Order: sequence, then C-alpha cells, then structure tokens
Amino acid sequence: MFLVLFLCTFTALVQAQVITSPDTNFTMKFELTKNGEPTYQLTYKKKPVIKQSKLGLETQDVSSFMEGFTVTDTKQTTVNNTWEPIMGEEKTIRNHYNELLVTLAQKDQKGRHINIRFRLFNDGLGFRYEFPEQPELSYFIIKEEKTEFNLAGDHKIFWIRGDYDTNEYAYTTSNISEIPQLIEKATHDVHAQYPIDTLSVQTPSMMKTADGLYINIHEAALVNYPAMHLNVDPKNYKMSSHLTPDAVGNKGYVQTDAHTPWRTIVVSDKATDILESRLILNLNEPTKYEDTSWIRPVKYIGVWWEYFVAGKSTWAYGTETNVKLSDDFNELTPNNRHGATTENVKKHIDFAAKHGFDAVLVEGWNIGWEDWFGNWKENVFDFKTPYPDFDVKELQQYAADKGVEIMMHHETSGSATNYERRLNEAFQFMQDHGYSAVKTGYVGKIIPRGEHHDSQWMVNHYIHVAETAAKYKIMINSHEAVRPTGVHRTYPNWIAQESARGTEFESMGGLAPDHTTILPFTRLMGGPMDYTPGIFQTDLSFYGTGSNQRVNTTLVKQLAYYVTMYSPLQMAADLPENYERFPDAFQFIKDVALDWDNTWVQEAEPGDYVTIARKAKGKNEWYVGGVTDENARTATVRFDFLPKGKNYIATIYADAKDASWNKNPQKYTIRKVLVNSKSVLKQAMAPGGGVAVSVHEGSKQDMKGLKKL
Amino acid sequence: MFLVLFLCTFTALVQAQVITSPDTNFTMKFELTKNGEPTYQLTYKKKPVIKQSKLGLETQDVSSFMEGFTVTDTKQTTVNNTWEPIMGEEKTIRNHYNELLVTLAQKDQKGRHINIRFRLFNDGLGFRYEFPEQPELSYFIIKEEKTEFNLAGDHKIFWIRGDYDTNEYAYTTSNISEIPQLIEKATHDVHAQYPIDTLSVQTPSMMKTADGLYINIHEAALVNYPAMHLNVDPKNYKMSSHLTPDAVGNKGYVQTDAHTPWRTIVVSDKATDILESRLILNLNEPTKYEDTSWIRPVKYIGVWWEYFVAGKSTWAYGTETNVKLSDDFNELTPNNRHGATTENVKKHIDFAAKHGFDAVLVEGWNIGWEDWFGNWKENVFDFKTPYPDFDVKELQQYAADKGVEIMMHHETSGSATNYERRLNEAFQFMQDHGYSAVKTGYVGKIIPRGEHHDSQWMVNHYIHVAETAAKYKIMINSHEAVRPTGVHRTYPNWIAQESARGTEFESMGGLAPDHTTILPFTRLMGGPMDYTPGIFQTDLSFYGTGSNQRVNTTLVKQLAYYVTMYSPLQMAADLPENYERFPDAFQFIKDVALDWDNTWVQEAEPGDYVTIARKAKGKNEWYVGGVTDENARTATVRFDFLPKGKNYIATIYADAKDASWNKNPQKYTIRKVLVNSKSVLKQAMAPGGGVAVSVHEGSKQDMKGLKKL
Repeated sequence: MFLVLFLCTFTALVQAQVITSPDTNFTMKFELTKNGEPTYQLTYKKKPVIKQSKLGLETQDVSSFMEGFTVTDTKQTTVNNTWEPIMGEEKTIRNHYNELLVTLAQKDQKGRHINIRFRLFNDGLGFRYEFPEQPELSYFIIKEEKTEFNLAGDHKIFWIRGDYDTNEYAYTTSNISEIPQLIEKATHDVHAQYPIDTLSVQTPSMMKTADGLYINIHEAALVNYPAMHLNVDPKNYKMSSHLTPDAVGNKGYVQTDAHTPWRTIVVSDKATDILESRLILNLNEPTKYEDTSWIRPVKYIGVWWEYFVAGKSTWAYGTETNVKLSDDFNELTPNNRHGATTENVKKHIDFAAKHGFDAVLVEGWNIGWEDWFGNWKENVFDFKTPYPDFDVKELQQYAADKGVEIMMHHETSGSATNYERRLNEAFQFMQDHGYSAVKTGYVGKIIPRGEHHDSQWMVNHYIHVAETAAKYKIMINSHEAVRPTGVHRTYPNWIAQESARGTEFESMGGLAPDHTTILPFTRLMGGPMDYTPGIFQTDLSFYGTGSNQRVNTTLVKQLAYYVTMYSPLQMAADLPENYERFPDAFQFIKDVALDWDNTWVQEAEPGDYVTIARKAKGKNEWYVGGVTDENARTATVRFDFLPKGKNYIATIYADAKDASWNKNPQKYTIRKVLVNSKSVLKQAMAPGGGVAVSVHEGSKQDMKGLKKL
Repeated sequence: MFLVLFLCTFTALVQAQVITSPDTNFTMKFELTKNGEPTYQLTYKKKPVIKQSKLGLETQDVSSFMEGFTVTDTKQTTVNNTWEPIMGEEKTIRNHYNELLVTLAQKDQKGRHINIRFRLFNDGLGFRYEFPEQPELSYFIIKEEKTEFNLAGDHKIFWIRGDYDTNEYAYTTSNISEIPQLIEKATHDVHAQYPIDTLSVQTPSMMKTADGLYINIHEAALVNYPAMHLNVDPKNYKMSSHLTPDAVGNKGYVQTDAHTPWRTIVVSDKATDILESRLILNLNEPTKYEDTSWIRPVKYIGVWWEYFVAGKSTWAYGTETNVKLSDDFNELTPNNRHGATTENVKKHIDFAAKHGFDAVLVEGWNIGWEDWFGNWKENVFDFKTPYPDFDVKELQQYAADKGVEIMMHHETSGSATNYERRLNEAFQFMQDHGYSAVKTGYVGKIIPRGEHHDSQWMVNHYIHVAETAAKYKIMINSHEAVRPTGVHRTYPNWIAQESARGTEFESMGGLAPDHTTILPFTRLMGGPMDYTPGIFQTDLSFYGTGSNQRVNTTLVKQLAYYVTMYSPLQMAADLPENYERFPDAFQFIKDVALDWDNTWVQEAEPGDYVTIARKAKGKNEWYVGGVTDENARTATVRFDFLPKGKNYIATIYADAKDASWNKNPQKYTIRKVLVNSKSVLKQAMAPGGGVAVSVHEGSKQDMKGLKKL
C-alpha cells in the first residue's frame, strides 16, 4: 500500500510552473511578477478558485521576503501512499498528491533563498513557506505573513470574527461583501475575547460560490507559529493572512531550518467531499511517539452540566470571593452547593459503570474556584489539592472497583505559566491516582500577559502540555485552546478539543439550529471536537430555577451528533437522571462507536443539513447521524456501504411527527427494521431535528418479525 | 535579647501624626492634604531630608488610591529586638524602630481602606502600602505608584540611568540638576538594555547634601511587585516612584491581603553609618526554610576569566552559529578553543584543592553556546547535556576525590520560561552529580517576551527559582537578575547576586577607579554582590591577544575587595597561573573569611574611599580592606575592635610607593607587624589602589621579631 513516485524535473529556471492534481481536476500555477513577487493561482474543473494571489512575508529585523525573487530551482514529485491514524474517521487514509517545490532566491540579499512547497491533492491545495538553514539566514522575526487568497467572486461565507483569543462565536452566514455591515453584530460577548481591529474572519473559513463550488480555507500542522486569521477585503473578495501577534506585536520567531504551517484550500463541487477530505491530516507529520497503545477512545459522563443548568451546584466550595492557594480551605465557609463532592461523584461512577461509560469528568474538585475567573490571576489553581469534601483516595478505589475512571480537570484560567510550573506534579498526581485523561481549560486572559490563546508561545504551550502528558501516558481534551489543525496526528494523545461554541452555550442564550450543520465544515475540519452532546432535557425551565433557556434541538438531533460531530472522545453531557427517563433513546449513546473504519458522508449542505454514516472500527456495526437546521427536511441514507447480500438490523431513532426544536423536542420514535446494501432510508427530520440509526448483525431469531425497510 | 514594646495609642481620628526614631534624631510626620492626599516628611537632626511628599497609587481597573482619604485609625508600636542572619556582616542584628500604622479610608469608595506603615529606625525610614482584604477590594492592577521623595536641595548624587532590564551601567556623579545634560552620556551600551524614556535613575540612589547629610533611597523586600525606579524632577529636586511595567504596560497585579515592598530612606551625617545600616535587612521577612544548615559560604575559582581576556578559549564548542538543542553536538565542528573541557576543569580542580577553595565554576559546559546570544531564542539551553568534551561523571568523581565541588552554571539567556520548564530536571541533575551551588545568568531580552528583568513576573521568577532550588538544597548566585533588596534574608539560599557592573567590564573598556567606592553605597545596600574580584594580571595586553584593555586597579586593591565588597560567595577570578606568580599576595585571598561576626566601617566617602574591618565568624581573625579612587590617599584603620590587652599579628598588603592603577599596579609590599586594640594604621594607598590587612592570633614564637605597628 506504499507507493512513491518521484518525477523530478530539473527544469531551466523558468519563472512559472504548473501542476495538476492526480485526477487533473485542479490546476495550480506558480508565477513570479515582474518585481519578483511570488504568486499562485488555483482552478478546479477550469473554474477559478484562487485568482492570481501574492505570497510573501514581512519581517522585523532582516529584509523582507516579499519581492526581488528569482526561481533558482524547481522540483516536482508525486506521492501516493496510505497510512493509518491511531483513531479516526477512517482506518486507512490515502495520501495522494503532486508536489511542486520552488526555490526562490533574492539576489539583493546575497542569494538568500526560501522555498515554497505546494501539494496538490484531489481534494485541494496545501502550500507552505520553508526557510532552509543558510549563512544568510539563521534567525528572523515575522512582522506579517502576506499570503493572499484572491477569491473569484462575492461568495457566500460561513464566518466568525477574527479574534486572537476565542473561537467561541456563533456563525454568521452572508456574502463576503456583507461582512462589514454584520461584523459588530457578529461580535458576541465571549470572556477574554480580543476581536481583531481589521476586518477579518477566522479559519476554517467555509465558502460557497454562486456556481456551486465549496471552498474551505484553513491551515495544517500549526506548530511553533501563530494561528492565522484572514483579513477580508470585501470589495475585491480578497483574503489575506493575519497572524496572531505576541505581547510585543511580533508575529513569529523563526530559527532556520524552519517552515510555516500549511495553508490549505479544500475545494469541491460536492459539499460531501469537503467533509470527506483528509487533506489537513495528510499535511501533518506522523507521530514520533513510539508506543501509542494507551491512546484510546473515551466515552464519558460528568459532573458538569449541572453547573450550567440545574442551579443546584457550583464548582466552588466556599462562599468567599478572595482565596489564595495558601489558604486553609477547610476554614472556608461551605456554600453547601459544591458539585464535586465524594457522594455526588460516587453516584456518577455508579451510573457510568451501569451504562458502560469509560469515565466520569469531575470539574470543581480542586481548590481555587472561588475567584478563578476574570482576575488575570497567576497562581489560581494547583491541580493537586482537593476540596475538603472530595476524597481522592476513596474515589480512586471506588472508581477502580467499578471499572470506571475519573477524568481529571485542569482549568488553567489562561494562566499557562502557572500550569507549566506545576505540570509534572499535576500529571504525576494523575498517574498516582488512576487518571488517564484530562480536560484542560483556558478560560481567561493568557499569562504570560500580553500573549494570546492563538499566539506562537501558546501554540507551543499546548504542544508542550501534550508532549509532557505523553510521558505519563495521559490523554488531553483541551478547551479554549487554539483551534485544531490536524496536529493530533502528530500528538495523538491530544485526542479532542473544544475551540468553538459548544453545548455549554445552549444554557447561555442557545445555539442556532443551523450551528451544528456549519461546525463540520468549519471547526471540525481541523480535528475532533468535544462538543459535549447528548442533552435530553432541552427545555431548561424544567429545573425550576427561573431559567427560560432551551437547547435548540430535538432530543434525536442530540443523538445524531455522536455521528455527525466526529470525536474519539464523546460526552453524554446531560444529568444521569435525565437519561434514566429516556432509557430507549439513551441506548443509542451507549451503543455508538467513537472510532471508525470508514465514513460515508451521505448528504450535506453547510448551514442546512449533514448526514453521515460510519462503520465502527473492527466491528460489523454502523451508525448514521443526520441533522437539519431550523427547517424540517427528509434525510436520505443509502445503505450501499453495507456488505452485499446480507440483512442487518437497523434501529432508527426519529423525531416524532409533531416534534421540533422548540415544540415537543423530546418526542421521538424508535423502530427496528431490516436493511441491506440496497436499502434507502428516507427519514423525516423535524425543524431543528435529526435522525440516528444503529445497524448491527442479528441472528435469525433477532430478525424474526422485523420488516424490511 | 528579645524585647517588643507595644505602645498602642488609639488616638482620635486626627489627620496628622508624628513619630521619632528611638534616638530621636529622626522625625517623621504623616499628614493628609485638604483633598485627603496622604503625605509624609522626614527630618534628621532637624534638617529636612524629605520635604512634604505625597503618597498614593494610580490604578487601572478600580478607582485610585490617590485622594479622598480620611484617617480612620492609627497605631504606634515600638519594636526592639535582635536576630541572627544565616550569613552576613554581623552575627547579631538589632531591629529597633518606632512604627506608625495609619489606616486610611475613602468615603467615596464605600469606606475602602488601605494602610501605610512607617518604621522609623535610628538609621532611617521604611514605609509601605498595605491593602487589607475587604469586600471592596480583592483584585486590582497598578497603573503607577505615586510615592514622592521631595528632596531639600540640589544634592550630589551617584547615579545610573533608570532601565527596566539592566543595572550594569557605570556611575555618574553630579548634582541632581545636572542629570538631564548627562543622561545620554550615562547610557552606556549594555546588552538587552531598556533605558526609561522619562528622566529617571535607579535605586539604591545615593545622595549627599550640601550640608553633609548622606541619603540613600532604595526598597526592601521586593516580592510579587515590580522593581522601583525613580523619576527625577531636576528643577524641584523631587523624585517619584516609577515601577517597571509588564508586557502590556501594567505595573503590578495585586490580590488583597497584600502590601508593597518597603520604600527605604537611610540617612546619616556620617557616610560610615550608611554602610553599617541594616535597615533593609530588618525590613525583610525571616526565612521560612526550616533547615538552613546546608547554606554556607563559597570561595571559588572558575573557568571564566579566560573567556574574557586570554583569547584562548570560548564558551562554545562548535564553529556553527545556528544550533538547536535537538542537534547532535558530536557532529558540530569543534572550534578547538572550547574552555570547559574535562582536562581544563581538572587543572582547575587541582588548583582549587591545593589552595583550599570550595568550588570551581565552569561556564560553557552545556550545549547551546554557539548561538545563545541576542536572538530572543526560547529553547536556548537544556541545563543538562554536556558538550562532547566535558565528562560529567568523570569530573564528578575527580572533584569529589579532591574535596572540591564544581559550581553549576545555568545561563538562561533571559529565557525564563524555558528555564522554568526545565528547572526541576536541572536541579535534579545537579543533585545527582554533586553540585550544590549554581550561578544563574539572564543575559538577553526576557521571555515571556515583553517582560523585563525588573518586572513583577520576573521578580516572582527569581524567587520561584530560589524556592525550588531550596527543595534540592541548592544555593543560587544570580547574574543579571533584579537588584537585591535584602530578600536573601527570606530566601537565604539566594546567597549572592551580580546586578551591577562587575569585574567583567574591566575587560570591556574598564571600570573607573572610583566605581568600587560607590558600589558599597548603591548596589551593595541591597545585598551581597558577586563582584568576582581578585584580578592580579591587570594589564590585559599581557596575554598578547592584541587587547590594550586594563583592569583599573592595583593588585592590592583587588585584595581589599574581599572585605569592602561584602559577599558570602567570593570568586578568585583570575587565572590560576597568575595566582601562582604572586603566591604571597594570593595568601590573603586564601585566608580571608566570607562570613562575619562583626563589621566596623573605618572610614568612607562615596566616590572617594571605603575602609572596612571585619571579624571572621566564630574565629579570632580580622580582615581589613581599604580602597581609594583615582587619588592616592592614606587609609586609617583603628584596631580598637580587637580584644583589649593582647597583641595580634597583622599582615599588611600595601601598594608599593610607585604603584598606581595604570603604572606598576602589580608592585606591592607585604609586612607583618604586631597590633593591639590601641594600634592605628595609617597606610598610603596608591592612585586606584588599596590596602588589605589580615589579623590573627599568634604564638610567642610566631610573634618573635615582629615590630609593633
């Protein structure tokens, strides 16, 4: 399964180069301007995707990489091989591209040279800048990367505002030209946000052209470099890179030999192709970890949602609002609403054990929650001292006896320096007490002060945390970290991230019904999301706490998320007692796989609907999820992915006829039918609803009396 | 020896308060202005020292602490006790002061209150702001501290320019009013400097008034706060606090209960009193370390001066100028001039063992020196991987066999984040390999980028390093850290610092002959200095490397430094072979103590001369050092500190008659005489010269033939 084709062409030093994708649908042309400025352009099936666009970098302390270049070498290569992710949407991923490596020298700079490496796949383009070690170039500081994405029209775009510190915005759908008039409205209140002054949007940036092309711009392999946002020129439909600055306004410290992340442009005339693209993963490096046997899927519940909705419990133990880690927390005044008590956690462990969950997340177990928020406080948590009512040893034994783990929670409050100081001790504590996964959090302004969640120092911090965790065989689920770019291929214990507006916001104003039809095309392009689905009690007035909030989905749509929102780490986020009220629907969450042999995107349109089928890894089980926006819609599932000539039992979880996200969201039907590879399901989805299907083998006895679909 | 007197006066809520020093020489008056602004004023023997000066702080996020105050409580206390430093200039230190604690409330701010605590000693004033925990005040950010020092005239001042990143400037002596015209000339080139834009000088700031008062302004107990510089108003002779900002321009993050460092004003009409003041130490907290038995004086030599002068060796091993820690350093091209080779270190160990030194500092032993400098590079050193030609294990055994230790060197290049990540591993490495002391270095711009050597984050970093080192029983000798403020009382393993222009600059332009007559009044007010004295070969053209540099002292003045420049850690900085050329003079360095029972400052005038006598701790040995500036001068030593009625042998190391700092600096005389408590030595010192005397008991046999002084 390994095939590398080298087509090295040591060409004359021409100033233009053209490559095509293996299927010839894409053509990419590299060319220098008269001033020696590098440019590229991209077409798909002869339609322009990126019109001629400049490439280059402005620098702080050496002359710029903007112009005066000549092409001194080019090299074309074809690679066609496959590889297997440790966990993923597919067991085997094909990596097939034609590469153009251009070496560019600046005569004025003693022949100082850089490379631009283009890889053209059947699903799109990746390219990056490379800075070889050379006498003329050891260290430099980036003022700005000046990569342009010169779009061919006023595309529809699904966007959130550029922000150095948060991705947790709701999406706006508009044309590019409409962004200026919508930008302020799109700037929702998010804690510790830092909206960018210039007109800009975040990546992954999903667009659709008037003639039916889907274009997704993002980056791959963000390592030792700041995250990229996209400046928007709403008149010329031109986007350009906008890197996240550090505390002194610099945008990257480079020591050669070095390269930037890949800039990625995934394109197709079918929306489903966007979701099936593995381009970003292919552009990441394989892992250097030798042993990855300890990295595994995690299905978990948690002492968590009750903090948002039930009004009965809190992360904090004391009523005080000014505490120090050196305080004696036994002397605080208990607020008597602390959630992470030994007793409450035991109940959750019981529930997890009964229903086959791997872990119970416990937030608020450690001292410091009384004043953790909004104070730019450095020594905010120590990650090892429990509150007086949380018995670490007792719970360790209790969980072990039940075959369940507790999931650690390391909220840093953005104080990365404090976390780094305590990191080894924190992981040692986990190892000593039987924790193998940790949810990390970065709610707050970053310390080192002046750095941002998306700046180079923090990008390196997250990776430092993942690499250090790997030494302890610990898996990381990061919240509020920089959005993913496929680096979980390289650091596979960084198994999931939040980095977008997730379920928690359903309790704080709610998410639009189309939100989760957009996320697969945006946030999830970079990697798995810990979306924390599974809310059955969607009307939050249920709790009698005066809240009139609601989760803007049907119950069934929550089930569908376990398939549509890929992650090898999935939470059943609702309270255990709510699952006990709906045991038949809960069965789907208990059954659903987290790691897959294959994925077939059945149908998709960003902002409207997504239906995905997947085969469980190493098992003859298939799961299907379909979601729709605020409109009722019929999902179509073709079971042609099933082995031919055999019947399977499909359990179909569907919205009831009168259900919708805001009326009767908990009304659903469950039916079992027989399906085979010729079956086609046409299933009505309610407004804000969805569909979930599990398919498994059955004995004749099991199938008896079941009708064909 | 312990006496605390409480004189609590619950006065009526008057707006002015007066206290005097125990000896009544000082009077301090606290008073509110009409607008409720706190002020203080200070007189010494009825002469104004500080005219009415305002106190207060401007804040970023809460209303300011500038005005609108009323006095809601005052409390006066007298304390008179003694304590024993772990190492120091005196075995027993008296702590005797009258204290005024003023509680000030702002009615407009719901009675929000702060305290100002004044302690008036016989040697001067200390005061600080205190922020008690209260419902109205948990967290705030300081915009600027607005403490004024309103001086009574255009004093003579010994100053270096305010700078957020370095103290390594040469001193300028002028009147306050002359500072503006001299400031640019005084801004010498120092790596990674950050001179303050506003007219300002650093502390300790030493002044002399026209009517003969000596005034020293500094701070004590700088913990969790940025270092203070002094803005200068050259027309009104007013100084005011200028805190070091962080990366975003903030000047301090405060969580109540909290307080600022003490602002200190040491005053006397005798210059010798300034040097004998222990006010700054008294205002620091006792140590919390339970076991301090492992903290001890260190006399050391090093593989160090050869890097500056001999031209034969380098810190770096390879010729490359672009290396990464991940490189294989065995594959670098050796420059064949690497200093820290196993062989060279063994020679130094031999020398140290032969002459009774505790340790050999070895710089350049660890990988990374090829490009450590000036690149704002984060992962610059790993503190544990030796160069291929430095055999850690072999040297560990070799040193142990000879009863000598190697002193570790941790150059951070200012990359504090990198150091913190590796700190535990680095100290573990030291413990595993028999190192008990480390010289740390911070040459370079700080990482976290935007922070400064003197900013709050870094102040906390140095203390974090000291506290972490204490867990491993490791002593710290920091270079390029924030200047000391007596915190070695609290963290006694932080045994010495550089934090001023030291001997190394003698190889880079030289130090003025008066430099070391100023340092005791400035830099050393805060704590011990690793000045690295002991250069015998002062003419550096000696090495035949084309250098025409010279150390601007006589050889004898270098001996005197071991007494005049207090430190429990002292280097004999010259090359071993130079000591072997002058074994009789070298004997003083071998003999001299590092820790003292008593200190008697014999005579002193900042900028002119300093003569100090000290008694070795726990021994009947006394050492005297005297230094003069560029002028020849007669030092006077009164031996009245000796026990009465007994003769001792004094060995007097004196400049030869024709010696001076720039002619015949190596010509000296050594004579032995008998001294007793009535003896007075009048000893000529050459221009740029000095005198050193050791006094010890002798048998009749020893004394035979010796003349009385």
